[in-house]
Amino acid sequence: MIQHSNPLTEEEVEGYRERGFLVQEAVFSPAEVEVLKRHAQAEFDLDSPRRTFEEGTDVVRGVHGSHLCDEFFADFVRVPQLLLVARQLLAADVYVHQFKINAKRAFKGEVWEWHQDFIYWHLEDGMPQPEALSAAVFLDDVTEFNGPLIFIPGSQDAGIINVDAREEGWQSTLTADLKYALTSETLQTLANENGLVAPKGVKGSVLWFHCNIAHGSAPNMSPFDRRLLLVTYNNVDNAPAEGAGSRPDWLSNRSSAALEVVDGDPLSRTAVDVGA
Amino acid sequence: MIQHSNPLTEEEVEGYRERGFLVQEAVFSPAEVEVLKRHAQAEFDLDSPRRTFEEGTDVVRGVHGSHLCDEFFADFVRVPQLLLVARQLLAADVYVHQFKINAKRAFKGEVWEWHQDFIYWHLEDGMPQPEALSAAVFLDDVTEFNGPLIFIPGSQDAGIINVDAREEGWQSTLTADLKYALTSETLQTLANENGLVAPKGVKGSVLWFHCNIAHGSAPNMSPFDRRLLLVTYNNVDNAPAEGAGSRPDWLSNRSSAALEVVDGDPLSRTAVDVGA
Repeated sequence: MIQHSNPLTEEEVEGYRERGFLVQEAVFSPAEVEVLKRHAQAEFDLDSPRRTFEEGTDVVRGVHGSHLCDEFFADFVRVPQLLLVARQLLAADVYVHQFKINAKRAFKGEVWEWHQDFIYWHLEDGMPQPEALSAAVFLDDVTEFNGPLIFIPGSQDAGIINVDAREEGWQSTLTADLKYALTSETLQTLANENGLVAPKGVKGSVLWFHCNIAHGSAPNMSPFDRRLLLVTYNNVDNAPAEGAGSRPDWLSNRSSAALEVVDGDPLSRTAVDVGA
Repeated sequence: MIQHSNPLTEEEVEGYRERGFLVQEAVFSPAEVEVLKRHAQAEFDLDSPRRTFEEGTDVVRGVHGSHLCDEFFADFVRVPQLLLVARQLLAADVYVHQFKINAKRAFKGEVWEWHQDFIYWHLEDGMPQPEALSAAVFLDDVTEFNGPLIFIPGSQDAGIINVDAREEGWQSTLTADLKYALTSETLQTLANENGLVAPKGVKGSVLWFHCNIAHGSAPNMSPFDRRLLLVTYNNVDNAPAEGAGSRPDWLSNRSSAALEVVDGDPLSRTAVDVGA
């Protein structure tokens, strides 16, 4: 690992450990977000098994694994604004286990049921320990009206909360009717103790959250899209064993080599290539 | 009309006229809200065609017309905290055109699509002019997480916005898939001009809103119920003509006699009758 200074203060790291999430306002500029949005749109438009749809419609709900197929996103997951924070919060070298862009379109974007992320990566992919986290990059302003993520702060300390799997097979890990949704009783207990929080922010902000924090999101009731780019970083020493899991690599990346900070700035470099 | 002092300030009335809604915090005490909740629960539990259910479930979504069948609610719609405000805002004698209690249960309470109320009362019931308003009495704390009403402030000034009716028959006025939902284009235009607002407040608060204001609500994503008691008052001179409309009286009240303030306090009077 080339030495870089740690971008977060001790206080920020402590806050993350305690609450299970951390918001950094306006990490990327509006111009940089425009570049991200154009690349995201290209991914939404590309016919691929990596896309999912809002139930019973042809409205794209999200797309996975762009960092494996698209040079821009392969570079983007290595920008210092993300990679250095991931390293600092996990105190380890990291790689990207999963990548997705959620569309959450105006009026169309549906509910994400309450769940934890790690149980999928553990049971489906063979990730040993909850030593992963996700960066949610806001591609649109996130408000109370367009389906922000809702967290139960501190719930990551509960570890994996057992739930009954609803359907066999990894395909059900992609549907709106989640395979490992949390039960009402569990959520009641957790929320009574810790309350609920829905972090908002302007586009370009980054929301970091622990792989075991309980979260969900309401539908997008607003006339404004709420696109979110989600990069899940994992400790390289916490990669699934070779041959573990049956999900395709665009859901469970098999290349766990430590990422190095990208050369140059993909956000300014590609602005010209993509065009207006 | 017996003369009572007007409860609202000029500023409050002006704010209502401009924005189309008005919040009064903690109008009813927690003890009074408990009385309301017990009566509401009795209505939820009563097998009646006045109840509606969350789609495909036996979870009660709401119940209509309790003021016609239940002495307590017949009195409650005449408490000065509601009746005097309704009179002041409509500058008229009033009666109750519609009454409902929305359950919006924890995790179960589903989306209400964007709509205006008056179009139902006009087209289905024959109410001539938009001279009605609703009081939403919070039976639970209303937060950003449990599906608050969302308004486009000022949208009442757009008058009736034409929409295509989705299904024939008044039964479809009761379903989650609304008969007169607003289109995405209309909402985009209105929200771009005026933004969105979701008034919150502690239980016992009252939210007044104009019959033509565009509104909707997200599902209840929280482990906490969000029960709401909705009383729609109409100007007595604005009652539908005799014989107009085909909806049952529990959706479109035919008795338009001016209401007088109730004798005594139904909220303290019935606390004993209902029991713990």
